[in-house]
Amino acid sequence: MPNGPEPTQSTTPPAPGRGPLLAIGGAEDKLGKRSVLSEFVRLAGGPDARIAVIPTASSLGDEIVDVYDALFRKIGAADVWGVRPESREQAEDPEVVGRLADATGIFMTGGNQLKLSAIVNGTAFGEEIKAAHERGVVVGGTSAGASIQSSHMVAFGTGGATPKQRMTQLAGGLGLIRDVVIDQHFGQRNRYGRLLMLVAQSPHLLGIGVDEDTGALITDDDDGHTRLRVLGRGVVTIFDGRAIVSNAHEARRTAPLLASGVVLHVLPAGSAFDLTDKALVRQAPVVDPGEAEELAVAGRDLKRLARDIAADDVSPTVLRRRRARQHSEGDLPSD
Amino acid sequence: MPNGPEPTQSTTPPAPGRGPLLAIGGAEDKLGKRSVLSEFVRLAGGPDARIAVIPTASSLGDEIVDVYDALFRKIGAADVWGVRPESREQAEDPEVVGRLADATGIFMTGGNQLKLSAIVNGTAFGEEIKAAHERGVVVGGTSAGASIQSSHMVAFGTGGATPKQRMTQLAGGLGLIRDVVIDQHFGQRNRYGRLLMLVAQSPHLLGIGVDEDTGALITDDDDGHTRLRVLGRGVVTIFDGRAIVSNAHEARRTAPLLASGVVLHVLPAGSAFDLTDKALVRQAPVVDPGEAEELAVAGRDLKRLARDIAADDVSPTVLRRRRARQHSEGDLPSD
Repeated sequence: MPNGPEPTQSTTPPAPGRGPLLAIGGAEDKLGKRSVLSEFVRLAGGPDARIAVIPTASSLGDEIVDVYDALFRKIGAADVWGVRPESREQAEDPEVVGRLADATGIFMTGGNQLKLSAIVNGTAFGEEIKAAHERGVVVGGTSAGASIQSSHMVAFGTGGATPKQRMTQLAGGLGLIRDVVIDQHFGQRNRYGRLLMLVAQSPHLLGIGVDEDTGALITDDDDGHTRLRVLGRGVVTIFDGRAIVSNAHEARRTAPLLASGVVLHVLPAGSAFDLTDKALVRQAPVVDPGEAEELAVAGRDLKRLARDIAADDVSPTVLRRRRARQHSEGDLPSD
Repeated sequence: MPNGPEPTQSTTPPAPGRGPLLAIGGAEDKLGKRSVLSEFVRLAGGPDARIAVIPTASSLGDEIVDVYDALFRKIGAADVWGVRPESREQAEDPEVVGRLADATGIFMTGGNQLKLSAIVNGTAFGEEIKAAHERGVVVGGTSAGASIQSSHMVAFGTGGATPKQRMTQLAGGLGLIRDVVIDQHFGQRNRYGRLLMLVAQSPHLLGIGVDEDTGALITDDDDGHTRLRVLGRGVVTIFDGRAIVSNAHEARRTAPLLASGVVLHVLPAGSAFDLTDKALVRQAPVVDPGEAEELAVAGRDLKRLARDIAADDVSPTVLRRRRARQHSEGDLPSD
């Protein structure tokens, strides 16, 4: 059904080389504008997109593939199919692995990331996802399918704003992006504390928390930098712990952790973060149309004044009166 | 009833000059160890404490004074009384103002901080609180009574992790401490977003979020620095926005705000923050008794070795054998 709405053109196309990653914080809009999923389809080739859906994390049956099949086709993808290893044995099966070969996009659903990583990581299937990403295929995932993308993965844990020593568990992720840990449902489930805990214990890992219906799009750009761009309804929260002072090595199991000097970035849609430099990408300021118009009018006014002075045909007093009259006539908008 | 439990001695006594401030994040323990309230009584003079309770923020009647009266006396205070202006007219009444004169501690209850500030700020009563603080009286407060202490006060607002442009309202506080904004019930009501919003809009204000049953004790120390020490069950969260990049001047009303480069400090009980330098106060590391014992044993061992070498009475081979024998006999604990 390639007669769905056109995918949005909100971000730059993928650079050659490694494919983009799209980490979605769960609960992405499936009924309205579908801006995050549309971006995934666009990155996978739009009308030429052939998308393999991996539902291994999910506890649901085939209906989860049916949902994404319908969604991606509605948005305009050419082909969508499910690939579902349910054991490490199946994840080594060449037939199963081979079903990823033709995909221009790979999408991992939500569910239990520890199930996904325990079945996929280190198998031929896991290696094929990485190889596809290396040759330019976009890899996306939501919730569990976002968490697994990083080298270090939140296995499970509790919510809450306060970091505590044993509130979450770290496991190994697929490693499509290194030295980061991605958490999801971030604002909605109040996961500040657990991501801070992970950064306090491993300060070289950049903590990336993705809100629901929000995507962190990670691309290798032409200048050699890897950047993260934000799309969707919420924010991406980044904890940079490189300058942290913490008591994580000596804190008691349930005690709140000291985590001082963490640099925090809260990034709404449209903003971008340089993961290589660990710094915000500065963008041109938004121009207020009213202010621009006022400046244009004032500029015309000044040109006329300069002409008058150059022609030396009027006294300054006359000029001042003329300008006062023009202003009272509404030549310049008031504040 | 000065026969209550001894107040704890967890922090240093107040420096001469301005009194300490104790901002409590609400819901302080009233039935168990009462560690936060005990600290307030201690700072007010322990068995000599004479405490004026200001319940103006509260919508409750005299029972709120009765509760703190019973608590402070149980902890060991000498005298406790309520002073309750309910209008700006009453807050100008010399009789009402005079009832603060003898207090060694002033305590403001929870409730509605906007009611408290609207009645008290800028009146003779408000000025008397500030004068008492200047002459060394400890001023404490919980919830609304914490918020009002800073120069800038959260009037009201909504919870949530994501900062948005119009999620909270700033009003003027009593100004016992300047250039900060104190929020309370911080982790419990997920007020990260609103405090970040305030710091994004006013980056020179240090955002201080105090958890429930947690106290931020602020003192002017002898070296001229003002420091914040944390006591109680939760943490104090500090947002330092001096290096922030934000779009607060142009963001839409309900859109998530960009807030990049905020320095975050999460401070559990026992930690301290220098408000003058805006930096963590470094503390001596906790020494592990097992590790200390191991080092002492190894030290004795090395001394013996040095004696042997100085005496030149044994070959290195003999020494090595002797050391190996000592280790296998358990002279050094194993890891």
